[in-house]
Amino acid sequence: MTDKTTRGGLFVTFEGIDGSGKSTQARLLAEALRAEGRDVVLTREPGGSPGAEEIRALVLQGDKDRWSAETEILLFAAARRDHLERVIWPAVAAGKTVICDRFADSTRMYQGLSRGDLREKVDALHSLMIGQEPDLTVLVDMPPEVGLARALGRQGSEERFESFGVELQQKMRDGFLGLAREFADRFRIVNGDQPIDDVARQIRTLFDAAEDR
Amino acid sequence: MTDKTTRGGLFVTFEGIDGSGKSTQARLLAEALRAEGRDVVLTREPGGSPGAEEIRALVLQGDKDRWSAETEILLFAAARRDHLERVIWPAVAAGKTVICDRFADSTRMYQGLSRGDLREKVDALHSLMIGQEPDLTVLVDMPPEVGLARALGRQGSEERFESFGVELQQKMRDGFLGLAREFADRFRIVNGDQPIDDVARQIRTLFDAAEDR
Repeated sequence: MTDKTTRGGLFVTFEGIDGSGKSTQARLLAEALRAEGRDVVLTREPGGSPGAEEIRALVLQGDKDRWSAETEILLFAAARRDHLERVIWPAVAAGKTVICDRFADSTRMYQGLSRGDLREKVDALHSLMIGQEPDLTVLVDMPPEVGLARALGRQGSEERFESFGVELQQKMRDGFLGLAREFADRFRIVNGDQPIDDVARQIRTLFDAAEDR
Repeated sequence: MTDKTTRGGLFVTFEGIDGSGKSTQARLLAEALRAEGRDVVLTREPGGSPGAEEIRALVLQGDKDRWSAETEILLFAAARRDHLERVIWPAVAAGKTVICDRFADSTRMYQGLSRGDLREKVDALHSLMIGQEPDLTVLVDMPPEVGLARALGRQGSEERFESFGVELQQKMRDGFLGLAREFADRFRIVNGDQPIDDVARQIRTLFDAAEDR
C-alpha cells in the first residue's frame, strides 16, 4: 500500500443516470468509512461549497431555457472551481477521503450530449480551468427503465434534468459507459440493479483496490 | 460606405480606468445617435441582460476574496455569453448600433492583471466561449490621479474594483494603452482629460470613421 500521508486522501466520484442509486451508494460508502474512524468529506455537484450552491441555485431555478448550453457550462465550471478550491483540494491535502456525488463526467454527459454537441467545448473548458480528475469514479450502471421509474418517484429542483424520458436516459447510460472506456484507469462499473447492500459491498471492494494502487 | 443592412449594426465598446468618463461618453454618443433617429442599444458590463445582471450581483456583492480570480473570470465569461446571446447579437443582427460600457478588454485588464497573472487564461477562455470582438473600442485615456479623484467622488457596489489606489490605476492605464497597441485595428484612444463636449466630439468623429470602414 502506498503511503497515504504523502499523497493526500483519495478523491472518489459517483456517476450514473438519474435513479441509479449513486447518491445512496455515495452516502453508504461515506458512512462505512466513518464507522471505521476515517475522516470523510461527502459532497455533491453542482454545488458543494457555499459559493457553488449559490451558482447551482442560479442554474437550476427558473425556466429550462433560461440559460444557453454555453452559459450553463460556464456557470457549472465556475461552481466546480469554487467547490475544488474551498472544499475538495483542502480536504484531499489534509489526507481526508472526498466522496463526491457527480463531478465533471456529469457535465461531459448532460451538457456535452443532451444540450447540443458541446463535448469538445466541455473538455477544453475543463482542461483550461479545472484540470482535476478523480482517483476513482464509480459508475453505478442501471437500465434506464429502472432508473427512470425510481427517479420519477422523487421530486425536486433537479427535475428538469430528469424530465427527458427513457430514450435520453438510454443515451446517457451509453454515454457513461463510453466515458468508462475512455477513462478506463479511474472508472469502475458496478451493476446498480441489485440489492443495495450487494452494490455497496462491491463498491467497497473497488474503493479498497483504488487505495492499494 | 459599406452597406450596413448586410453587415449588421456596429458594436462599439468603451474602456478606460475608473473615473475616466467612459460611461458618460458612452451615454452621450448613444443620445447623439438617437437624436438623429438611429436605433441604439446602450448597455454595460458586467451585466447587461437579466441573467448577466444576476451573475454580476453574485460577483460584486460580498467579501472581496469571496471568489478566486479563476472562479471570477468564469462567472464573468458566463455573464458575457448571456449578454451577447440575449442582447448584443440580436441587436447587431437587427442593424442596431450597440454601445457597451466595458467589455472583454476590462476582463483582460482587471482579472488578467490585477488578480494575478491570468491574462493567458482570460484570452484562452475568451477564444473558447466568447469569440466576439467589438468593431470599435474607444479607450478614454486619463491620468490616474485625475480619474481616481473623480471615481472617489462616487460610490457603489463596484467600489471594490476602484479601491486599488493610484499605483494600480497607473498599471491599468498602461495596460489599456498596451491593449490599444495589441488590437490596433479596433482600438482608438481619446484624451479624457478635456472638456466633456470636446471629448464627445472627438469620439463622434471616430465613430463615423468606423462606420465608413
